[in-house]
Amino acid sequence: MTLRPGSKTRAQVREVSDGEQRRRGDYLATEEPLEIRLAAGGRTERLAVTMRTPGKDFELAAGFLHGEGIVAGREQVRGISYCTDPELDAAQQYNVVNVELAGGAMPDLRGLERHFYTSSACGVCGKASLDQIELRGCAVPPPGPRVDAEVLYGLPERLRGAQGLFESTGGLHAAGLFTPEGELKCLREDVGRHNAVDKLVGWALLQGELPLTDRILLVSGRASFEIMQKALVAGVPIVCAVSAPSSLAVDVAERFGMTLAGFLRGRRFNLYAGEDRVELPARTADRA
Amino acid sequence: MTLRPGSKTRAQVREVSDGEQRRRGDYLATEEPLEIRLAAGGRTERLAVTMRTPGKDFELAAGFLHGEGIVAGREQVRGISYCTDPELDAAQQYNVVNVELAGGAMPDLRGLERHFYTSSACGVCGKASLDQIELRGCAVPPPGPRVDAEVLYGLPERLRGAQGLFESTGGLHAAGLFTPEGELKCLREDVGRHNAVDKLVGWALLQGELPLTDRILLVSGRASFEIMQKALVAGVPIVCAVSAPSSLAVDVAERFGMTLAGFLRGRRFNLYAGEDRVELPARTADRA
Repeated sequence: MTLRPGSKTRAQVREVSDGEQRRRGDYLATEEPLEIRLAAGGRTERLAVTMRTPGKDFELAAGFLHGEGIVAGREQVRGISYCTDPELDAAQQYNVVNVELAGGAMPDLRGLERHFYTSSACGVCGKASLDQIELRGCAVPPPGPRVDAEVLYGLPERLRGAQGLFESTGGLHAAGLFTPEGELKCLREDVGRHNAVDKLVGWALLQGELPLTDRILLVSGRASFEIMQKALVAGVPIVCAVSAPSSLAVDVAERFGMTLAGFLRGRRFNLYAGEDRVELPARTADRA
Repeated sequence: MTLRPGSKTRAQVREVSDGEQRRRGDYLATEEPLEIRLAAGGRTERLAVTMRTPGKDFELAAGFLHGEGIVAGREQVRGISYCTDPELDAAQQYNVVNVELAGGAMPDLRGLERHFYTSSACGVCGKASLDQIELRGCAVPPPGPRVDAEVLYGLPERLRGAQGLFESTGGLHAAGLFTPEGELKCLREDVGRHNAVDKLVGWALLQGELPLTDRILLVSGRASFEIMQKALVAGVPIVCAVSAPSSLAVDVAERFGMTLAGFLRGRRFNLYAGEDRVELPARTADRA
């Protein structure tokens, strides 16, 4: 008997359809809290609790730490493990991940106030949020790669085809990393869309594949400021979203030279920034 | 000339469709940070910064404070205003909201660590998250109201029909409050789905309409733990989601006697909890 939470949970539902109803079994995407702890220099700090779908928890922790600027590469991670705190029972131990840093000292964690993209000096606005990213020293992705529009058309279907949990639960965000030729290198799913991206970046970090300067990131939902920030920190030059981008997501792409496509569905998409990386159809239909 | 950020932002996009492409104008859902400040007893505390779509910012602030258990009713709010901090320029002032409390003293804000649904005493797991809500003293909604399945079928279309911003940007979450007869009482939109619910609850709070024991909440996306928690705190007995609920969302509904429907699309839905509030079709199609 294992108490480890699974990524899907059995449930009984009553399906109501037009004039009929019946009881049937179903699966739900599991949502459970994950606490991320950081161990360094003989100290342990509790950094954050995020609601996530269990599975790939070590990647989620590594990706979260990367996005927050605490860990830049795998050489900085000595080890990642589930909690062995004897005060926690077995089920809870799988909801606490310890990341042990290779360096001696606990890093400065004051930047971790995730809801504060601001200081009184820089004010509160979209521009200040972008300035904040720049202050962190994020590198603008290099000019390449160049991708054919035909390759982009095919990405959502490949993502969906590989999305096992969505099939059974209908309730998960997905994020995928693709080569410029459209090959899926890694797919992660989660009830939280930021978590799905954190898991991908954590996977790349633990594989030693950062920065992701030759990869396309596809997210199954919308592109927000936070998604673009995570992609930028990981070096991803091209971000595609199945749904709409926000104004600030487009601002991040423009400011940092990233390519951003939205509404990527069927054989169409909108390009919001970084057109130079996309091989466009020759035929134009510009309004006179 | 106003520098106040609008809820949508003009953009130029390149639309790529099959073998054609063209430049055209478009609208994006605006995403800008909002800082929420709390003033009481001569002090001002900066509580949180959330990425939101401008519009109904006072409601968002009021709803946020209600969800966090800081404000229970409008009599506790002396006033809400945009910031007049002379250090901020005009555009930024519209991204900072001050909520002034009517009572004398600054409340205890230690519960505000939003990512911590846990203490070392109670551990980290779904059950502990539910215990945490119970400890806050949330009332279980009373037995009523009773709603016909036919009413539920019609809600998503009414929500979408009233959703002005989505029409032009294609990129917003919506949340609506309905009567048991299916009348839309309030609709709010935001790039963040939690924000859309906070705006609704804040609207109800400022109207003096809390608790919402005779209302149905419909969200345009998924139902998560956090959405259910906000609904429960506001007294909403029936929550419907156009997409899937998570396991923990169902757990909240079961534990606190709420009704939860998911995949509400077309003339169908799944009931996950609280069947007693729904008038079901008489015809069953149960498997033998």
